[in-house]
Amino acid sequence: MSKVAVIRKAHFNSAHRLHNPEWSEEMNKKVFGKCNNPNYHGHNYDLEVKVIGEVDPLSGYVIDMKILKDLIEDHVLQRFDHKNLNLDTEEFRNLNPTAENIVLVIWNILRSRLEDQYDLHIRLYETERNFVEYPA
Amino acid sequence: MSKVAVIRKAHFNSAHRLHNPEWSEEMNKKVFGKCNNPNYHGHNYDLEVKVIGEVDPLSGYVIDMKILKDLIEDHVLQRFDHKNLNLDTEEFRNLNPTAENIVLVIWNILRSRLEDQYDLHIRLYETERNFVEYPA
Amino acid sequence: MSKVAVIRKAHFNSAHRLHNPEWSEEMNKKVFGKCNNPNYHGHNYDLEVKVIGEVDPLSGYVIDMKILKDLIEDHVLQRFDHKNLNLDTEEFRNLNPTAENIVLVIWNILRSRLEDQYDLHIRLYETERNFVEYPA
Amino acid sequence: MSKVAVIRKAHFNSAHRLHNPEWSEEMNKKVFGKCNNPNYHGHNYDLEVKVIGEVDPLSGYVIDMKILKDLIEDHVLQRFDHKNLNLDTEEFRNLNPTAENIVLVIWNILRSRLEDQYDLHIRLYETERNFVEYPA
Amino acid sequence: MSKVAVIRKAHFNSAHRLHNPEWSEEMNKKVFGKCNNPNYHGHNYDLEVKVIGEVDPLSGYVIDMKILKDLIEDHVLQRFDHKNLNLDTEEFRNLNPTAENIVLVIWNILRSRLEDQYDLHIRLYETERNFVEYPA
Amino acid sequence: MSKVAVIRKAHFNSAHRLHNPEWSEEMNKKVFGKCNNPNYHGHNYDLEVKVIGEVDPLSGYVIDMKILKDLIEDHVLQRFDHKNLNLDTEEFRNLNPTAENIVLVIWNILRSRLEDQYDLHIRLYETERNFVEYPA
Repeated sequence: MSKVAVIRKAHFNSAHRLHNPEWSEEMNKKVFGKCNNPNYHGHNYDLEVKVIGEVDPLSGYVIDMKILKDLIEDHVLQRFDHKNLNLDTEEFRNLNPTAENIVLVIWNILRSRLEDQYDLHIRLYETERNFVEYPA
Repeated sequence: MSKVAVIRKAHFNSAHRLHNPEWSEEMNKKVFGKCNNPNYHGHNYDLEVKVIGEVDPLSGYVIDMKILKDLIEDHVLQRFDHKNLNLDTEEFRNLNPTAENIVLVIWNILRSRLEDQYDLHIRLYETERNFVEYPA
Repeated sequence: MSKVAVIRKAHFNSAHRLHNPEWSEEMNKKVFGKCNNPNYHGHNYDLEVKVIGEVDPLSGYVIDMKILKDLIEDHVLQRFDHKNLNLDTEEFRNLNPTAENIVLVIWNILRSRLEDQYDLHIRLYETERNFVEYPA
Repeated sequence: MSKVAVIRKAHFNSAHRLHNPEWSEEMNKKVFGKCNNPNYHGHNYDLEVKVIGEVDPLSGYVIDMKILKDLIEDHVLQRFDHKNLNLDTEEFRNLNPTAENIVLVIWNILRSRLEDQYDLHIRLYETERNFVEYPA
Repeated sequence: MSKVAVIRKAHFNSAHRLHNPEWSEEMNKKVFGKCNNPNYHGHNYDLEVKVIGEVDPLSGYVIDMKILKDLIEDHVLQRFDHKNLNLDTEEFRNLNPTAENIVLVIWNILRSRLEDQYDLHIRLYETERNFVEYPA
Repeated sequence: MSKVAVIRKAHFNSAHRLHNPEWSEEMNKKVFGKCNNPNYHGHNYDLEVKVIGEVDPLSGYVIDMKILKDLIEDHVLQRFDHKNLNLDTEEFRNLNPTAENIVLVIWNILRSRLEDQYDLHIRLYETERNFVEYPA
């Protein structure tokens, strides 16, 4: 049987700030630059969720896109959309919300809710020019 | 020698309907929702054909893009562009034209016409937010 | 007071066929080419609805985007999304669904549901390379 | 002499919150919904600055794009990029940072710094699906 | 009768150099910077041709897109695609190929070949971030 | 520890010509077509540099994007932006500047300047419809 990848895109808009509380202000500014701004800044995050599995011969689907869309809506967008990642979310209260850490957090959230027969890959755009992928 | 991937994009516009004739109308509606509309709906399909091979030291090409473009034109676009996938094509008369099945059909069409030294990967966008890849 | 334009994008996927029943088959083929295919083809239509008005000093809005989004959803997408424009809609039963005619129909639908103080402009993409605007 | 429009794109990433301090919490939530989140959210704002003028016969330019780029950099991006619009900027301390108000503010900033022979139009994308223009 | 605008996109890839032969080398470098490089550089030019006219009640077309596409192909792309604008074209032998001048030249080429009942507007992208429009 | 991929986009505008000096004019025209134009043509090259590594637990970064951006600026854009690849660069004086060869050259330039713990992948768009990747 043939394994096919299906990809669903989604979007969320969040405020965040990059900061390591164990570092001095000087060190934070040096490493994170403008992204360390104390009052936060924000992004339109574009998310691509790739699910790999066998094509069901009855439906012709790897996974029902409506189910995948709802999974992303209920467990990613509800948490992060129109939120301040540092202040409003449990996940980033003690974890620096870099694109790298956000993609790992989203992968873990969706992995635990996706059946084992599927492989999962996440791509996250922070801006049009900067994006991350996990697993690499 | 170095293997490089070259990718060529193409487009086709088709009508289709998702339907399993062995299922009840109720079951078809439940699984395929709006995509089961009896009179069809349609898409601008965006296709990316990736060919992997060694770079020819004389031409600097993996494959002549004009040859690849013509291959896609003659064997994919001629069959599917401005067609009703369910009614006008042999391939989907008895196969549900989900994005997953379309990407498998296109891969098979091009694989049999591409020399063995090349690897072949296909990505197909059904909408800007939904796309598939084969092999995964 | 300052007039600002606000634009909302939406999408719908439809099947259609270009055909003039008063013309011969030959004439239809000559004028509409592949778009005359009897079994239809289809498109991902991208719609931009531009509403021009004064900025409300209390809300800072020209129009609440949620109201505009719902108007498009209820009166345009519900009618045309995942439909066959020629067979499933009242508007195009006797009107050729060219991009020009679709943009005029959508403008009329929304104009009658939008308060008089607003100006309305519609842009409709049939493909990435072909689009129309009304009023011009 | 022929008037030509030249357009330069730029980007900035900001946090903001929609809120009218003269309204009740209930009213704010009703009008602004998720955008009223007390801890802010954010966007990648895409800006298009259009300058209209006569083509200089010696340079073939309406305006030197490097001068226009620097003007946007110095007076728009320096103020708003990687900032919290509500907290970090003078312009939006007492003005609700809706897309409509942001486009008016940017137009005023640039208008006062652009020579009189030029016309100025601004387009601002808040998300891929929502954008505004001034003048309309 | 309703006037509708129809827009067709096209692309061409050209080399060019910005230079005023009546200026000193120093002046040319100051005004045109990197664009003055003696051995040329190049762009993927994206062209949008907008034609405004009344919708023909028989065809539902403002203008047959195939005719418009051929007009662009025969009179713009044949001249400028895969050419050096400064060396290979009559139009820019003695005219500096800035985006402003290119858009004026293309407008004149197409205007003289388009019937009088149509209005014509051209947009030309030199890069994703820089583009021009005529008439403004 | 988790390996994450971070991707940075960049752009450069260059003139080039495809030509094999050991072939006849006829052979060059047959293989390279319009791309063999003696006076060059050009492209807006879009570059995606993917760096794979472990996420640093202190910064939350795989690699500081400012460092990656500067590396691309100093060693790729400085060499190739607003240049004639055939005439102005050492790398392509004796190497045909096909997209395949350009991607290999850029990979080698960046590989030698990137620490060993990172993996490196390059994608290069020559046009919107043609692009290459290395390693495949």
